Amino acid sequence: MTIHQESLRDTACLIVHGPDQPGVVAAVTALITRNRGNIISLDQYSTDADGGAFFQRVVFHRTDLAVAIQNIDADLAETLSPYGMEWTLTDQSIPKRMAILASTSDHCLLELLWRHRRGELPVTIPMVISNHTNTADDVRSFGIPFFHVPSQGPDKSGAEAKILELLTGNVDFIVLARYMQIISEDFLDAVDVPVINIHHSFLPAFIGAAPYRKAKERGVKLIGATSHYVTKDLDEGPIIEQDVARVDHSMTAANLQARGAYVERAVLSRAVQWHAEDRVIRHGNQTIVF
Amino acid sequence: MTIHQESLRDTACLIVHGPDQPGVVAAVTALITRNRGNIISLDQYSTDADGGAFFQRVVFHRTDLAVAIQNIDADLAETLSPYGMEWTLTDQSIPKRMAILASTSDHCLLELLWRHRRGELPVTIPMVISNHTNTADDVRSFGIPFFHVPSQGPDKSGAEAKILELLTGNVDFIVLARYMQIISEDFLDAVDVPVINIHHSFLPAFIGAAPYRKAKERGVKLIGATSHYVTKDLDEGPIIEQDVARVDHSMTAANLQARGAYVERAVLSRAVQWHAEDRVIRHGNQTIVF
Amino acid sequence: MTIHQESLRDTACLIVHGPDQPGVVAAVTALITRNRGNIISLDQYSTDADGGAFFQRVVFHRTDLAVAIQNIDADLAETLSPYGMEWTLTDQSIPKRMAILASTSDHCLLELLWRHRRGELPVTIPMVISNHTNTADDVRSFGIPFFHVPSQGPDKSGAEAKILELLTGNVDFIVLARYMQIISEDFLDAVDVPVINIHHSFLPAFIGAAPYRKAKERGVKLIGATSHYVTKDLDEGPIIEQDVARVDHSMTAANLQARGAYVERAVLSRAVQWHAEDRVIRHGNQTIVF
Amino acid sequence: MTIHQESLRDTACLIVHGPDQPGVVAAVTALITRNRGNIISLDQYSTDADGGAFFQRVVFHRTDLAVAIQNIDADLAETLSPYGMEWTLTDQSIPKRMAILASTSDHCLLELLWRHRRGELPVTIPMVISNHTNTADDVRSFGIPFFHVPSQGPDKSGAEAKILELLTGNVDFIVLARYMQIISEDFLDAVDVPVINIHHSFLPAFIGAAPYRKAKERGVKLIGATSHYVTKDLDEGPIIEQDVARVDHSMTAANLQARGAYVERAVLSRAVQWHAEDRVIRHGNQTIVF
Repeated sequence: MTIHQESLRDTACLIVHGPDQPGVVAAVTALITRNRGNIISLDQYSTDADGGAFFQRVVFHRTDLAVAIQNIDADLAETLSPYGMEWTLTDQSIPKRMAILASTSDHCLLELLWRHRRGELPVTIPMVISNHTNTADDVRSFGIPFFHVPSQGPDKSGAEAKILELLTGNVDFIVLARYMQIISEDFLDAVDVPVINIHHSFLPAFIGAAPYRKAKERGVKLIGATSHYVTKDLDEGPIIEQDVARVDHSMTAANLQARGAYVERAVLSRAVQWHAEDRVIRHGNQTIVF
Repeated sequence: MTIHQESLRDTACLIVHGPDQPGVVAAVTALITRNRGNIISLDQYSTDADGGAFFQRVVFHRTDLAVAIQNIDADLAETLSPYGMEWTLTDQSIPKRMAILASTSDHCLLELLWRHRRGELPVTIPMVISNHTNTADDVRSFGIPFFHVPSQGPDKSGAEAKILELLTGNVDFIVLARYMQIISEDFLDAVDVPVINIHHSFLPAFIGAAPYRKAKERGVKLIGATSHYVTKDLDEGPIIEQDVARVDHSMTAANLQARGAYVERAVLSRAVQWHAEDRVIRHGNQTIVF
Repeated sequence: MTIHQESLRDTACLIVHGPDQPGVVAAVTALITRNRGNIISLDQYSTDADGGAFFQRVVFHRTDLAVAIQNIDADLAETLSPYGMEWTLTDQSIPKRMAILASTSDHCLLELLWRHRRGELPVTIPMVISNHTNTADDVRSFGIPFFHVPSQGPDKSGAEAKILELLTGNVDFIVLARYMQIISEDFLDAVDVPVINIHHSFLPAFIGAAPYRKAKERGVKLIGATSHYVTKDLDEGPIIEQDVARVDHSMTAANLQARGAYVERAVLSRAVQWHAEDRVIRHGNQTIVF
Repeated sequence: MTIHQESLRDTACLIVHGPDQPGVVAAVTALITRNRGNIISLDQYSTDADGGAFFQRVVFHRTDLAVAIQNIDADLAETLSPYGMEWTLTDQSIPKRMAILASTSDHCLLELLWRHRRGELPVTIPMVISNHTNTADDVRSFGIPFFHVPSQGPDKSGAEAKILELLTGNVDFIVLARYMQIISEDFLDAVDVPVINIHHSFLPAFIGAAPYRKAKERGVKLIGATSHYVTKDLDEGPIIEQDVARVDHSMTAANLQARGAYVERAVLSRAVQWHAEDRVIRHGNQTIVF
C-alpha cells in the first residue's frame, strides 16, 4: 500500500447528479452525518439554478468504511429517490485499474508510469499494450506487464479482438498514451469502460492527423494538447483538460512536436489523475471537473 | 442597480469558521434548507481533519432575503453555539463601499474604476483620495468624487487625520492603489476596516522600497506583484493574490517597472474582487480564498 | 515628444528579406558601420538554411539620422541589388499614424488609448471611428478625435466610403478594436495600409461569429484571442499574437466573454506595439515576429 | 551520433564580449564571411549603448569546420585584439560532458537522463554520482555509469575528495540535481568547471533550507524554482532560469513539494540545455541568456 492509498483509507467519494432542486445538499450532508461520516471536501454545480442539472461531489471520512458502505448505499437509495437523483459511491482506498495503450512514443507512457511509481496516481496498472516493442524494457523496469499486439494493415479487427481479450474484466479505464490508432466503435462498445485520449492539438483546432504540421502552416503562436474521453466521433469527445505552450516562427513542425510532447504528458497526466480521483463528471459532450 | 447587483438580488453569503468537528456542514445546510434557502455554491476547508480550524462559505438564494435575514441570523446563533463557531451573514446585493487611496501612478487606479464601471466589481466607490492631483480629471470622468490630501514632509499625521475624517463611517474597505505612503499603526487602528495593498514584487522577495531595481540587480527571470492585507508589519500582511511575468536580461529596471504595472493592476483587481465577494478569509497571517 | 520618441531619436530600423545566401549579414552590418551606424539589436531568420527565405531586422543608432537616411538608402540599393534582396529603412523617431475602428465594446479601444498616453505605443492616433457613439466622451478625454460613422442595414458601402474618406492619406495602419463589421475586399484594396484585427478566439478554433458561445458548447478548458492581419479571407489572415486564459465548467458564455476581454486587450496591444515597432514581417500567410 | 549532433555537424558557436564600441558586429560578421561561414543565428546585447559591456553570440555553419576552426580562431585573435574583446569559439558538434550529482530524489535526475536519451540535450553523461543508492538501477538502465559516494557525518571533505577524483578531467560541467549537500569553496575551486544547481524556491524568496515549509508558512499563492550557477555564496549565484506554479491554501507543505517537483525538473532542464548550447553568459552576478 503506497502512501497515497494509506491516506485514502476509510475515505469515500460520493457523486450525486440529477435535476436541481432545493434541499438536495442538506439531504446529502445530513445523510453523511447520520452515517457518521466527516466531510473532507464538497463541490457542487448547477447548470442553471432554475431547473438545471445538479452535480455534487462529496469526499468524506468514515471509520470502518468497508463495513459501512453498503448501509450508506442503501440509505442513499432511500434518501435520493424522492429527488430523482442518481449517485455513485466509491471507496477511495481501492485504486482504479488502468490499462495503457501505447505506440512508439514514450513521453506520455513513461510520465504515467513514473507518476504512478511516485504514488501520485491512485491507480494500479495491470498492463501496458503496445503495437510496437521499443518501450517493453522501460515498461517492465517499472514492474508493469507489457503486451505486444501488432496492428499492421488496414484491418484492425484482429488486433482489437486481441486487445479486448487482454482487457476484459481486468481494467476500470483505459488511457491512450499517444496510441495513434483509430479505435472502432465496436471496440468502444465491447470494452465498456471509459477511454481517455491525448490529442496533440488545442482542440477543436487542428482536428485529425498531423496537427503540428497544420499548426506550423497556420502560423499559430501557441500550440496545445487536449485530453478527452473517446467517443465514436473522432476528436469530438468531452474535453477533460487542455494546455498550451508558446512557440515562434523559427520553430519547425518537428520543433513544435518536441515542444508539444511536454504539454501532452502534463495534460494527459492531469486528466488521468482527475479521472482516477472521481473528479470528472461527463455531462453531454462536456465535463464538470471538481 | 447594475447588472451585477441585479443578479445578486436575494443572494446571501454565509461565512462560518471555528474548530473543525463532525456535523457542522450538515447543520449549516439543514439550517439553510429550513429557512427556504437554495444553495448556489459551497466551499469548505479544514487546516487539519483532526482538530484543525474549519472554514466554510455558502452562497444561497432566498426569496425576500431582506425580510428573512434577521431570522436566519438568529437561527445561526442558536444552531452554531453548541459548536463554538463564529459566522458572518451578508446580503450580497448590498455592495461594499470601497475607498481608493492613490498617488501619481494611474494604472491600478484606472483599472479598478474601469472594472467597476463594467459592473465587474460588486462595490460602490464613494471616493478616491490622492496626495497628488494628476488623476483628478480621470477619476471624475468616471463620476467618482476625488479628494486631494497632500502629504509632504516627514510628519504624515496631519494628512492621515484628514484622510480619516473623509473615510470614517463612509467605507467598508480601503484599497491602496500604489499609494506609496507608509500607513501608520494608529491610522490602521482608527480606520478599523480592511486595507488592501498592492506590492510591486513577488513577496517575500524584494521587501521594501525599489523592488524593480532590486530585481534587476539580482538578475531574476520573472518579476511579480503581490496583493495583501495591510498590517502594522510592512509587506508582511496576509497575501491574497500574486502573479508574475517573464523578463530577460535586456530589460532595464524601468522596463521591469513598465512590464510589472500590468501584473500589478491584474493582481490588485482580482484581490479586490475576491474581497468584495466575501471570498477571502484571514487566518493568522494567511488567507483562505474560496 | 514623449519619452518613448525621445529615446528613439536618431534610431533607424532596417528590414531586409529575400533569398537566403552567405554573406548577407556581413554585407548589411558592414554597410551600417561604414555609414557610421551603431547596431543596437539584430535579429535574423531563415526558413531554410539551404535555399530558404531570409529575414533580418537591424536597429541602429546614427547621429543626425534625418540627414543621413537618404544616403544609407542609396547605399542599400547598391549593396543589396546583387543579392536580390528587398528592404525597408525607417526612422524610428517618426511614429506611425494609427486609426482605430471600434464599435460599442470599449475594452480594446481604451487599452490602446491608455497605453498610448503612457508612451508605450510609438504611434500617433489621428482618429477613432465608431459605428456607435457610446465611447465618444472617453475617446475625446484622451484628446483624440472621434468620428461617428453609422453602419446600419445590409449595405455597408456607404459607411465604408465615408470611413475611407476620413482615413485616406491620414494613416499608416488601421486597428479593428472589436469593430464587429466585416470589411469588404474593396475597402481593403482602397485603404491600402495594413489592417490589424482582434478575433475573440484561439484561431483557427471557433472561426466566425459567436466564438464564446461555441467555446462553451464545446466545453473547452481554455479560451483565447488572436490578433492577425486582415485579408480578404475572414479570420484567415497572418497571425501576429495569441494568448489564452483558463476557464471551467461553471462559467457561462457571458462569463467567458467577460474573462476573454482581458485576453483580447492584451493580445491586441502586443500585436499593435510590435507592428508599430516594425517587428512583424509578413511571409505568405505567416508572420515572423522579431 | 544522435540526430541532435548530426544536425550540429560543421556548426560553430562564437561568443564575443567586452567593452561596447561601434563596428564590432560588422567586424565579426565580416570575419565569418571571409572564413566561408554562413550565419545561422546572431544575438547581441549591450548593458548600455554608451560605454557598456557588449555580448554577442553567433552560430554559423562552415563546411569542414574541424579543419578550419584553428584558422578562424587565429583570425579572431587578430581581428578582435584592437577592440579589446574576449571570445570563445566552440564546435557545436562536440557535446559537452556533463556529470550529475544526485541524492534520493529522482525527479530532476530522471528528467535529465530521459531528455538526453531523446536527443534533446547536446551533452554526454559520463557519470551520475549519488550519496544514496536508490536510483542506481534507473540510472544504469539508461546506460549511464553510476557511482555511490556516501556523505555521512559533518565532515564532507572525504566525500568531496572522492567525487573530485571521479570528476577531474572527465567533465565540462556539473549539475546538482537536488543533491542537497552544500558544496565547499575548496571543491568549487578544485573542480574548476561550471556547477549548475536547482533551488526549490523562487529566489531570492526562501533562501536556505526547507523553502516549501517556509512558503506554506508565508501563505504565498505561487511556488517556484530557480536554476543558478553555484558560487561560494549559497543560493546567491547568477540565475539562469526560473518558473512558478499556482498553489492554494488547501495544499500542505508536502503538496507544495510534490507540485514543485514538476517546476524544478522543467527549470533545471531548460537551464542545462541553454548552458550546453552556449546560450548563457555570466556577467557579474547576472546572466545573459540568448
